[in-house]
Amino acid sequence: MKPITLKDIAKALGLSPSTVSRAMKDNPAISVQTRERVQAYAAEHKYKPNTLAMQLRTNRVNTIGVIVPEIVHYFFSTVLAGIQDEAEKKNYNLLFCLSNEDYEREVKSVETLLDARVCGILASQSKSTRSFDHFQEIIDNKVHLVFFDRICTGINTDKVVVDDYAGAFNAVEYLISTGCRRIAFLGATPWLPIANNRRMGYEDALRKHRLPIEKELNQVCDTVDLAKVIIPQMLSLDPPPDAFFCINDEVAAYCIQITKSTGLDVPEDVSVCGFTNSYLTEVTYPKLTSVDQHGYRMGEVAARLLINRIEGKETKPGIVSRLIKTKLVVRESTK
Amino acid sequence: MKPITLKDIAKALGLSPSTVSRAMKDNPAISVQTRERVQAYAAEHKYKPNTLAMQLRTNRVNTIGVIVPEIVHYFFSTVLAGIQDEAEKKNYNLLFCLSNEDYEREVKSVETLLDARVCGILASQSKSTRSFDHFQEIIDNKVHLVFFDRICTGINTDKVVVDDYAGAFNAVEYLISTGCRRIAFLGATPWLPIANNRRMGYEDALRKHRLPIEKELNQVCDTVDLAKVIIPQMLSLDPPPDAFFCINDEVAAYCIQITKSTGLDVPEDVSVCGFTNSYLTEVTYPKLTSVDQHGYRMGEVAARLLINRIEGKETKPGIVSRLIKTKLVVRESTK
Repeated sequence: MKPITLKDIAKALGLSPSTVSRAMKDNPAISVQTRERVQAYAAEHKYKPNTLAMQLRTNRVNTIGVIVPEIVHYFFSTVLAGIQDEAEKKNYNLLFCLSNEDYEREVKSVETLLDARVCGILASQSKSTRSFDHFQEIIDNKVHLVFFDRICTGINTDKVVVDDYAGAFNAVEYLISTGCRRIAFLGATPWLPIANNRRMGYEDALRKHRLPIEKELNQVCDTVDLAKVIIPQMLSLDPPPDAFFCINDEVAAYCIQITKSTGLDVPEDVSVCGFTNSYLTEVTYPKLTSVDQHGYRMGEVAARLLINRIEGKETKPGIVSRLIKTKLVVRESTK
Repeated sequence: MKPITLKDIAKALGLSPSTVSRAMKDNPAISVQTRERVQAYAAEHKYKPNTLAMQLRTNRVNTIGVIVPEIVHYFFSTVLAGIQDEAEKKNYNLLFCLSNEDYEREVKSVETLLDARVCGILASQSKSTRSFDHFQEIIDNKVHLVFFDRICTGINTDKVVVDDYAGAFNAVEYLISTGCRRIAFLGATPWLPIANNRRMGYEDALRKHRLPIEKELNQVCDTVDLAKVIIPQMLSLDPPPDAFFCINDEVAAYCIQITKSTGLDVPEDVSVCGFTNSYLTEVTYPKLTSVDQHGYRMGEVAARLLINRIEGKETKPGIVSRLIKTKLVVRESTK
């Protein structure tokens, strides 16, 4: 007679295999009645756990995979630090994969982590990702998935995001309050929700103060290479912008350099505001005003949410969505 | 009768199990005679490959693990970029672990990567690591190991390093040639070979030009937090240093800020030189002179060496040691 498997027990009792597995291990997330029912059925049918399969499953118990688009920017480095500290506290190991803003690498990263038999994945999508089957595959493999920062709206799963809209709205409103009237937005690819939300915050602040929204002042400019091309173009407009609201601190730091190199003063002629609040804010001259995204906190919250899902402690059946608040830190690069 | 295993064949023929395994797969790294001998013996004894074990081994074929101490600094980010591009070209997947400069995390990272059954590991040791058994364990598990940048002198394996000594010597000699006579060295923990080599380069340049080596001008100062304490102390010496040679660009960027905040001019009164040549060099004011470490190239070379070992293409029996040359990039922060 073929030995009975976990799946057979699940089918016979109308439960999911993971419930049966947890019931066999006396996991407190499963009701005492269910545990007793499962264990009685297993004993009656002489269920023997497959030790090799168990070993494979054991490997999965305490390793979490993390997919990040890049690590050159301070923001993702601090998110990883938060993830790592939280994982360590709860005794989980971490494996990281870098997508390098590339869709193909992101797909490969998912496969590599599933092959490594992680028990959960934290992911922030790449700029170039427009198709999401690989994320669905994680869920279909019964591996927990939590998105952070760059979420993917097409996939039904938990997420932790920054209040990009409010962060941008408040920063732009602050620039307006200091007298700026022609504020440029150096943004990112519009299909990233973070970029779209910040653009909407920027535009709504202008609207609220009855300032025109001008297309030529709103461009994708999220890398140093783009900054070197687009900022001089904007500064040669007539009249030039009197403020730049930038998608990250690197672009803002270059914006200060480029603006000063054209003979304009920062902040007298042109205000510059970044987003991240990285250590770059302290080494630019003048020091950079920036929106603090609290990356470390985001990492902690995302890791905690994932671990609670893995351990059955987060029992909310629908999607859990956590919001990290931003804070404008005013320094010397704005009037 | 118990089925014959790879190990049995290896023992019977006086070969290593990995040679037998490669001979069975017709790997060209194994001589034709050996392949024929192994295959004949296997056929005669009705050797059947264990498919589950094979599958486990297959998982190992194309994933490389990488252990880095931190990623907040530009240097390691660029090394990872080089590793990733090279791995991608050769069709290998990557799993990263962060030790966060912590010995315990480094040990855990080794275990996590071995559990994930990687076929090779690239590692740069943490600042706090003084015991090396975990690295020896990698080798004992027959997993290839290549150190990069922060090598561990107690372990006999391939390595890729920067010519830290020459990089420091040339930078300090350049500072002397511009008229600096009281050059401070902001270094790192002395048991890291990179820090030790740079200190020796610094001291030898002073010796060559008959300048005194002063203990109070040579301190461990490799983080922003230390910079905020130690740089003001050094500037309050009588007389203060007329140049700082810094272990990384972050410390150098803060050094510029702190020096200027005391009323001294950079570079008129005090020259500042960094190490890495990161994008920070372009956003400080004045722009930062720095030693280019070619991190991307180091990543490529290390990944190539490891992959060649894995594929049996690097056949040199002893230790392979590759040196990446540095280059001083002079900007505005030095006289």
